[in-house]
This record gives sequence, C-alpha cells and structure tokens, in this order.
Amino acid sequence: MTLPLTPGATIGILGGGQLGRMLSVAAARLGFLTHIYEPGAEPPAGHVAHRVTTASYDDEAALNAFAASVDVITYEFENIPTAALDLLESLKPIHPGRQALATSQDRLTEKTFLQDLGLGTAPFAAVDSAEDLAKAIDEIGTPAILKTRRFGYDGKGQARVRSPDDAEAALADMNGAPAILEGFVDFSIEISVIAARGANGEVAAFDPGENVHKDGILDTTTVPARIPAALKTDAILLAGRILNALDYVGVLGVELFVTPQGLLVNEIAPRVHNSGHWTQTGCVSDQFEQHIRAVAGWPLGDGGRHSDVVMENLIGDDILRVPELARDAATAIHLYGKAEARPGRKMGHVNRITGPKS
Amino acid sequence: MTLPLTPGATIGILGGGQLGRMLSVAAARLGFLTHIYEPGAEPPAGHVAHRVTTASYDDEAALNAFAASVDVITYEFENIPTAALDLLESLKPIHPGRQALATSQDRLTEKTFLQDLGLGTAPFAAVDSAEDLAKAIDEIGTPAILKTRRFGYDGKGQARVRSPDDAEAALADMNGAPAILEGFVDFSIEISVIAARGANGEVAAFDPGENVHKDGILDTTTVPARIPAALKTDAILLAGRILNALDYVGVLGVELFVTPQGLLVNEIAPRVHNSGHWTQTGCVSDQFEQHIRAVAGWPLGDGGRHSDVVMENLIGDDILRVPELARDAATAIHLYGKAEARPGRKMGHVNRITGPKS
Repeated sequence: MTLPLTPGATIGILGGGQLGRMLSVAAARLGFLTHIYEPGAEPPAGHVAHRVTTASYDDEAALNAFAASVDVITYEFENIPTAALDLLESLKPIHPGRQALATSQDRLTEKTFLQDLGLGTAPFAAVDSAEDLAKAIDEIGTPAILKTRRFGYDGKGQARVRSPDDAEAALADMNGAPAILEGFVDFSIEISVIAARGANGEVAAFDPGENVHKDGILDTTTVPARIPAALKTDAILLAGRILNALDYVGVLGVELFVTPQGLLVNEIAPRVHNSGHWTQTGCVSDQFEQHIRAVAGWPLGDGGRHSDVVMENLIGDDILRVPELARDAATAIHLYGKAEARPGRKMGHVNRITGPKS
Repeated sequence: MTLPLTPGATIGILGGGQLGRMLSVAAARLGFLTHIYEPGAEPPAGHVAHRVTTASYDDEAALNAFAASVDVITYEFENIPTAALDLLESLKPIHPGRQALATSQDRLTEKTFLQDLGLGTAPFAAVDSAEDLAKAIDEIGTPAILKTRRFGYDGKGQARVRSPDDAEAALADMNGAPAILEGFVDFSIEISVIAARGANGEVAAFDPGENVHKDGILDTTTVPARIPAALKTDAILLAGRILNALDYVGVLGVELFVTPQGLLVNEIAPRVHNSGHWTQTGCVSDQFEQHIRAVAGWPLGDGGRHSDVVMENLIGDDILRVPELARDAATAIHLYGKAEARPGRKMGHVNRITGPKS
C-alpha cells in the first residue's frame, strides 16, 4: 500500500507499553487498525489494539507474520534489536527510519551527530577503558556523569563521577559496556520540544514544555515553559534542523537545557515522548495522532494549543491518588492498565488545565 | 466487586458500534478493561476493546460467560431484548438501569413519563388501529408524524401524515407495529443536553448544543447553542429532573425543541449521544468518560468547556472528504473503523474548534 494510508489500513507498532497504547488509540481515531508486537505478556497497548503478537525480537517467523499483516511499521522505543529491524525493514516501511534509530540508540553517535550539526551539547568523551575514563575526566572535569552508550532510560545505566576518586566504581557500574562521560551542565531549566516531520517533509512543533525530574524520572511538564519567545523559536528551529538532517518521518522528542550560553541538546528520542503527553489535553491533535499522521503520510496537525497545561506522571504508588485526582474537574486522567504498581514504574499521568492559552 | 471500581476492573458493553468504541477508549483511559458483546462480526468497538464476544442476544451460554467476565454492564443502544436483560441483570449490575431502558424503549411510555413529570412534549396519541389513527388525527390535527413505538432511530420507522388522506399509507408503513401519532411542533431550533448522574446521585451537565438534521440524521451540533442563558438553565434543570426521576446512573441525552412556549422534550436516549461528540474536543472529560465514571461509581467531571466547537457527522461518502479535512488544523477527526461506506451510514465525525469558550 502506498502513502497516504487510507482508513482501514493496519499500522504495526513495535512495543506494547503506554506509548504504544496511546499510539494505538490515536490510530483508531483516524480509522486505522493496529497490530502490537511485544515480547512481554499482557501488554498495556493490547487493551486497545486490534491484534497483539506476543513474541521475542529474535522470532523470525513471528516477525515475518507481523510484517505481512501490516501496511507500515512504527515503534514506541528505540532499542529494537538490529537483526529484527533488518528483517522487518526488508518487508515493510519503518518510520522513523534507520538513520534516526542508529543515531539515537547510541549516546556517542547521537552527541557526535548533534555536534556535527553545529548544535550545543554537554562536553563528552567516549569511555571504553579505565585509561579512557582518566583522560576524559582530565578533559571534562568533575562533577560528570558516566553513562552506557546504549539501552539507557529513566536514569538507568548511569553513574555520577563527583571527583576522580569515583572513577573506578562508576566504570564498574557500566558492567563492561561501552560508555560515554558527559560533563555536568549548569542549566536553569530543562525544556523539551515535541516536533514532527511528515512524509512530504513538512515540519510542525508543539510549544516547548518545561520539565522537572524526580529521582531521575520525569515528574512534571508545564506548558508554556518559562522562557523568552526568542528561545522558544530557537528550540523549535533546532528541532526542525534535527528532523531534516535525519530525513525523519514521525514525532521526535528533543530534551534541551536552558543555559546562560543558550540551548544545549540533552538527548533526542525518535518517538512520542513522555514530555509531550500534555498535548492530549492542550491541543486539537496530540503527539500520538501527530505521529500516526506522519507515518501514515497524512498532513500534520499544526501543533496549535488552546490551553495552558501541567502534566504530572503517576509513578508507582501515585496510582493510589487516583480517587482524589478524579474529584478535580480540571484534571484529565490517563492510566496505562498496568496490573502491578512497582516503585519507579510509570502507571499513568494526569493533564491539568491551568487556564486558557497564555 | 463493589463500587467504585478500581483500575483493572472490566466493564462490559452491550453493542459494538461507534458509541461502544468511544466508550471503550474512555474506559481504557481510566485503567479499565472492556468486553464488548455484539452479534455482528468485526464490530468497530472491537478494534479498541480488550475482549469481544460475537453472539446473538438469545445465546444464553454466551450471555452467562459475558456476565461472568465483567464487573459491571452498560450499553450503547437502548433496544436490547428484554430476555437478555433479565438474564444479565440477575448476574451483574446494569447501568443505566431497567427503568431508564423501559421508559426510553417505547415512545408512548417515554412521552407519558415526561408528561407525568410535568414536562412539555409534542401532542401525542397511541395508535394501534385505523380507528385509533382517525381519532388521533382528529385530536392532534395534521401535519403530524406516525412513528413505531419501539426500535426507531435516525428517522427509521416513521411516516409523515400531511393530511388525513395520508393515514392509510402511513399506517401501512408501520407494518402492524404499535405506533404513536405525534403532532408537529413549531420550533425555532433543536437543542440537546448531555447530562450525567453518578452512583451517589450527583448530577452534571454539558452545555446544550444546537442540532441540525439532514435527511432525518443528525448533521451538526454547535456549542454554544444560540439560546438565552435562562433557557440553558431550564434545559439543564429539566435534564436533571429526568435523571432523578429515573434514579439514573450514566449519561443521558435529551433532545429538546425550542418553541415560543418554551422547551418541549423531543426524546431521551439512555446512553451517550451523537449530539455529545463535541465534548471530546471541547472539554477536559468527554461524554464517554463521564458515562464510564458514572457506571464505575467514580466522581463525575463537571462538564466544563474550554472551547466553542462544531461537530459534523461524516455520513456515507462524506468519508471521502477525510484527506481534505485532515488539512484543517482546527479539526479533530474521529473515524469509526467501518469497512463499507453505505449511504446514511455514520462513518465518523469531526469536531472543529471555532474559538475559545464564548
């Protein structure tokens, strides 16, 4: 099937977590069927999907059947095994494409890509050995943070290096995985831009949101971010440059530090992003629909916003606050259908309208 | 399980059309699973439901298994066969309850109920025979409209009686079904109120919308309706009286004629209603979530509205307008996942924000 997809087409989604769940609902709203591919049993996305395949990413028969059943493939997370991608890509279009995945799967590749684009990042250096780390600490100084190059999220695979004395323990935390040392950035606030690029190259961005983390996990995103208009424009233009450089199709999340020297890119995520959940309540088209529109070859929404919104994540036992939250009429509740509330587990989020667009 | 239901509970929905589909998405948003019961194959609601039972309403084994799998039962249409309701009701709570169903399934019972409440309706009379019809025409006059007492929707089962000469043909159109003659009402506009009543008796209403029909099917609903504030209050209070009189739990749609003599009730629907679809784009909690909140024993949303909205139905070939509609950034598209676009078939709707709340 060629783009644009017509209603009735099937969108395959790799990953069955909350992002796949909300993508699935957005796809249904536009008349598409969804097919979720997820190794774990009872995935949250399965509650609202047309089909679910429960299989591992090295099950070639399952991957073949999945690809045969869908018209286009997208994903909710960037750490899809390369061999699975090779197989799927030979059978059906995958959006966003391999360049975006290869770039964002590896912190070193990502930072190098951003640097080559002329964008600011934290100082960084590759670390594969104790010698590398000593040299990197020399160059970058402390405090710094050592991170695995791959498979990190929500603060996992990271170790602080407060002084050179921490080097040995930090390196041990990497378990031998290739790593990257990043210098600490003196930033006032973190913002993120959720931007999209369509199959025809058009670009649209939502207003930047202001992020606050707690214990290494996003806690709240507030829109609008408290930054000058000129910086907002900078942030959006910068996201547009990244999208174009990657020949990107879909929604991209860009986390940015606001520093005295301007904006530094913290990281990019080639997918819908937790800091874009506020768009469900603040916009006509949310980030999930925007992503589906892009991968289906439809025109993008414009990212326009009608309200000011605060998004708050419900982590672990925060789920117990739902009865109280349900009594606040300005609060939209989004739960992910996860059975067990483990500490640090994202169970849902709420979007609270704080007023008309300011 | 007692109310309020906790996330992870299962809500059973009788009927798998677009209303069941949008109820299912709203239920998932609050962390509930849904189980759809629908005789037809490939129901639209099945694309976004956790489970689907395809079985007829006289399949007792299927009804038993369905009831055993859910915590509470609701429905998307009022014409559920009585025997099925008797069986289900003996096994699990059904909301809204039997009184609401019995009242709204029969136009004569409904109009009598409204009259007994002291609410205005069109003049009406029961018609079971040619003699009844002649007498009713004498009393009510022409033009009038003859309708089957049961199973009517979207203009089906209706015949106009322009003059007494039409009586015979109109009665023949009823195919022997018990009927009701309704006098024509001289109304300026039709409005509807989407109101809800919670398990604890609390009541909340959305702003009245103004409805325009085309070929007997709802075409657009515009919010706010062009009526004075006092009439809005009347409409909402009237809906509240109906909800209380029926000891109702859930969302109710009330269609009203605005006449020089005040408001007349056209009909009530004990479910979410096409004229409430605008709430998806204009409110923090839409009518579908409001209904799920009520049947789950949760607090209701307050019906507050942040935007002015026009909802337009996409009927039959209107689905071909989707590519053009997708280019309008102020327009939210909702398609129902129906494979075939037959004339008169509701394929989807769009909600267009026309400005901030006026």
